[in-house]
Amino acid sequence: MWQERKTWLTRLPLPVPETLKTPLEAAEFEIGQAGVRAAFTVEKDGGESYEILPVDGGYRITGGETGILFGAYALIRGLTTGCVPAGRQKPFYPLRMLNGWDNMDGTVERGYAGRSMWFEGGRFDYEPARVRQLGRMLASCGVNVLCVNNVNVHQPAQHLTDTLLPDLARFAALLRPFGVRLMICIDFSLPMQEGLPTADPLDEQVQAWWKERAKKIWAAVPDLAGFLVKADSEHRPGPNTYGRTHAEGANMLARAVAPFGGVLIWRAFVYNCMQDWRDTKTDRPRAAYDLYKPLDGQFDGNVIVQVKYGPFDFQVREPVSPLLLGMEKTNLALELQLAQEYTGHQIDLFAMPPLWREIFDGMGKERAKAVAAVSNLGRDENWTGHPFAALNLYAFGRFGWEPDIAPETVIREWVRLSYDLAPAQEDALTELLLSSRDAYEQYTANLGLCWMVRPESHYGPSPYGYEFDRWGTYNRADRNGVGIDRTDAGTGYVSQYPEALKKLYENPETCPDKLLLFFHRLPYDFRMKDGRTLIQRLYDDHFQGCARAESMKGVLESLPLPDADKREILERIDGQIKNAREWRDITNTFFHRLSGAADEKGRKIYE
Amino acid sequence: MWQERKTWLTRLPLPVPETLKTPLEAAEFEIGQAGVRAAFTVEKDGGESYEILPVDGGYRITGGETGILFGAYALIRGLTTGCVPAGRQKPFYPLRMLNGWDNMDGTVERGYAGRSMWFEGGRFDYEPARVRQLGRMLASCGVNVLCVNNVNVHQPAQHLTDTLLPDLARFAALLRPFGVRLMICIDFSLPMQEGLPTADPLDEQVQAWWKERAKKIWAAVPDLAGFLVKADSEHRPGPNTYGRTHAEGANMLARAVAPFGGVLIWRAFVYNCMQDWRDTKTDRPRAAYDLYKPLDGQFDGNVIVQVKYGPFDFQVREPVSPLLLGMEKTNLALELQLAQEYTGHQIDLFAMPPLWREIFDGMGKERAKAVAAVSNLGRDENWTGHPFAALNLYAFGRFGWEPDIAPETVIREWVRLSYDLAPAQEDALTELLLSSRDAYEQYTANLGLCWMVRPESHYGPSPYGYEFDRWGTYNRADRNGVGIDRTDAGTGYVSQYPEALKKLYENPETCPDKLLLFFHRLPYDFRMKDGRTLIQRLYDDHFQGCARAESMKGVLESLPLPDADKREILERIDGQIKNAREWRDITNTFFHRLSGAADEKGRKIYE
Repeated sequence: MWQERKTWLTRLPLPVPETLKTPLEAAEFEIGQAGVRAAFTVEKDGGESYEILPVDGGYRITGGETGILFGAYALIRGLTTGCVPAGRQKPFYPLRMLNGWDNMDGTVERGYAGRSMWFEGGRFDYEPARVRQLGRMLASCGVNVLCVNNVNVHQPAQHLTDTLLPDLARFAALLRPFGVRLMICIDFSLPMQEGLPTADPLDEQVQAWWKERAKKIWAAVPDLAGFLVKADSEHRPGPNTYGRTHAEGANMLARAVAPFGGVLIWRAFVYNCMQDWRDTKTDRPRAAYDLYKPLDGQFDGNVIVQVKYGPFDFQVREPVSPLLLGMEKTNLALELQLAQEYTGHQIDLFAMPPLWREIFDGMGKERAKAVAAVSNLGRDENWTGHPFAALNLYAFGRFGWEPDIAPETVIREWVRLSYDLAPAQEDALTELLLSSRDAYEQYTANLGLCWMVRPESHYGPSPYGYEFDRWGTYNRADRNGVGIDRTDAGTGYVSQYPEALKKLYENPETCPDKLLLFFHRLPYDFRMKDGRTLIQRLYDDHFQGCARAESMKGVLESLPLPDADKREILERIDGQIKNAREWRDITNTFFHRLSGAADEKGRKIYE
Repeated sequence: MWQERKTWLTRLPLPVPETLKTPLEAAEFEIGQAGVRAAFTVEKDGGESYEILPVDGGYRITGGETGILFGAYALIRGLTTGCVPAGRQKPFYPLRMLNGWDNMDGTVERGYAGRSMWFEGGRFDYEPARVRQLGRMLASCGVNVLCVNNVNVHQPAQHLTDTLLPDLARFAALLRPFGVRLMICIDFSLPMQEGLPTADPLDEQVQAWWKERAKKIWAAVPDLAGFLVKADSEHRPGPNTYGRTHAEGANMLARAVAPFGGVLIWRAFVYNCMQDWRDTKTDRPRAAYDLYKPLDGQFDGNVIVQVKYGPFDFQVREPVSPLLLGMEKTNLALELQLAQEYTGHQIDLFAMPPLWREIFDGMGKERAKAVAAVSNLGRDENWTGHPFAALNLYAFGRFGWEPDIAPETVIREWVRLSYDLAPAQEDALTELLLSSRDAYEQYTANLGLCWMVRPESHYGPSPYGYEFDRWGTYNRADRNGVGIDRTDAGTGYVSQYPEALKKLYENPETCPDKLLLFFHRLPYDFRMKDGRTLIQRLYDDHFQGCARAESMKGVLESLPLPDADKREILERIDGQIKNAREWRDITNTFFHRLSGAADEKGRKIYE
């Protein structure tokens, strides 16, 4: 039996009753639970929007069918954080989706919070009370779609489209009162698995098959949000098999789901995962733009192309994907990752709002029509492995409504909602979280290096771990220097950016330090803007980043947190410190062995 | 149903009838099958020895109960190879054991020939006809013990000592007519798994428990050869848990099996597998000698300490383990590995007799009382994954009888027994096999470097793959040089050797080139005996080794081999060439990036 852990919903007692059937019922219940007095007015066409008005002795929340529920949570939040939203509120992004990478065997790909919360042993397997609490969590931060299965569709998840539909429908019903709709990942080759001779998107039989299948699916789950597809990527099937473009593949599916109001989300994470390391011409960051830019304008209106924030794959820092800037005639979704795949496995602290702030600012929020994030949830009692990792889920929902939100604002909100701290303690925890990504970056692969992580686990340092492999992820460090020249003199990647950004990045004198080695190959004695040499900066960052991780422990020890949280947090900070020391020492030794350069400050670098 | 593939037993048709119950019946049957005329005289106390005498119109084989069977196979072999052994023959090593690393779930640890031939799904599962053929193969080359389960004892293999005893007895009965006895690996902590509060070897309850258990086991399998134990190694339980020595642990078990004539084999593969790479004092090759040398003389008479040939772990070339030279008052078994864990996964050709020749010569054959080898067998039709890998099984048995045998002799024997080739073809294949280990060594981790392999798979190059890990396996390559100083100025490992060897190894001027970087840390411009620099030798070997692998293909294509063998061999040589090119390019690039040295011959080294 799941133990009650409420993350940021501390004011709302468990359990959520199974009698709630609509967002209005849920809103009324929650307001009552929170001890707030409010009345509701439902507007037929209000959708997700709401307005909170103070009235005698309480509030009136006016809004659409789901808007009133978002309003209820906003009011409860506002009364704790000290800021009840004034004026009409509506989400900036209509589609705010959590992507579960849950497999039906109960594993979660790149999951760090235990096994799947809703799959086990090849079938749906969950505690309804916990799923209702999940619905409450998602609605309370503003997420409105949950994609239930991994983008890598493993058996028997294909059967989510037929024999498992009754189970999918039951699961959908549990989340519906919270304004959360489901999405499913489908396998592009599914028609062939069921007997058709082809999955060619231009084949009429295939088109008819998908239309029929969509009819069946929406008959079971009438408010299903749509399909999510990973095609022609990392060995997944796709339209390229048939000489068709991704637009042709996506549109075929989009036309099958359109009659039911469904969207078709097509992931743009496509690159050559069988690269030869000897090949210095092919440059993985170029791949998505090279493939998709020529297709701009060819996608149907209910297709959304989902693009990871950077051109690689969820690294600690990447420049904004040029595809996000270049697809002007295509609906885009920005893909984030709450699961800390490359960012510390929910052991190391990594609060994401500062990273996202850069991304939204760099992209321009209006470029995307939707936001998606790979889930960090699992069956662990505390939901997210590390209790503080719940912040990233919360903040994701908040960014989906207010992409201009300041990192400090959303972090402080979450801290105040989750814990009962004195002002100085709240400041300390907020500051620690706010700076956690910078610390992680400093002790891992800094200056835009990326990919110096262990290839299998994606945790811990391995400076040459990817170097001679097939993933297109090289640093090419040698005794003279390090980095990839991605200017026009090199791979030309920089020319995928608009002119102003190109100018900024292509000159090592103007390129931001933190992206320097992403765009440039430089000698160890290159002078950084602050006068330090590149090698000294590599050393300094690793020493500083590790010292920052070490210093976190004292702050965490000083905080009066609930016992379970405190125990888990202190256990994990020890893991983080160990990891940070490994990163510091291995990375410094690696560059010392190559460069031969002594640390100017005479700190310990192992031989 | 298993397809008939007969390895080197081409003159003996399948199947072996189930009616054969004794070695005499088997001997008479085999001689008849081979179309030879021979009579037998069984000597009561002849054991495994035999003599073949020509008599009118045929031969008379005189020998012990199993000796006559070994004699029968020797005669059949001799008539094909052209050399019938004259005079009394007996095996040099009384115990010649194949170690299956077979798990009961059907996997084989480090197995490259398919799944287990006798385990599947948690139980014994085999084709009796195939096991009889296995018995024939083992007897025909001279192996007399098969250890059925992995030294890492995973559940349910613990039950080989109780509920699975009837199955073990049935399996033993299948091999008994071929003079092959079984052995089992046991888990030192077994008494605790069955309810005792301790597994302390000095605890009387524990001692009594094992005596009782041994009684039960030998009641089921009266000719069981004994127990094999991996203890206090790589997280396996052992006597150290209780502050007891390995002698105390081994002797306790030895006393339990002694009443039944059993031996207790104790593996000496013990080292710190949680080393910190920063620690340059701890040196893994020292570990076994440091631990066991002080125990010399303390082991019971029916204990055999099983020692891997080198101080590391089955690398392409290691100096002979100093433990094999230093344990003068202890029964030793020399452990070899037929499974090509670090030596090419039965994809790359690696005929082992040249390696073993060095080991037996370096150790002195009389140092050991037994030989053991990790099996390279599996459920693959061809038994060993690569058809030529059967040579290593055959040769192991032959070395067990005649440890002075010349590599060329045993390779040519196997070639002649296995294939029907013209003399020039036989020469070509013999030469290719004879030189295959040298080629592999040249293109992989040469000059005694070891461990530049991918850590997970143990196949393919990863020069820094182990460098910052916990296994004690470092090359410490930097911009100036490479290797570990194991002289007295370094880790002192060299002082574990007798004086003459120590003198030889400790001076880089006398240390054999092929072990140079095992014993010494040297700059890239070190002058080798032939005048080349170290870096040039690193480059040259990698280019040459790869070229040798490439040149093998033409030889293999030219040979008139059976279709199935030929298809598999040509498929695998393509894999080997690909692997060799990876090793060549990655290793050369690695050292070029570090050293900055150009290749004197201007060959292609990637950046």
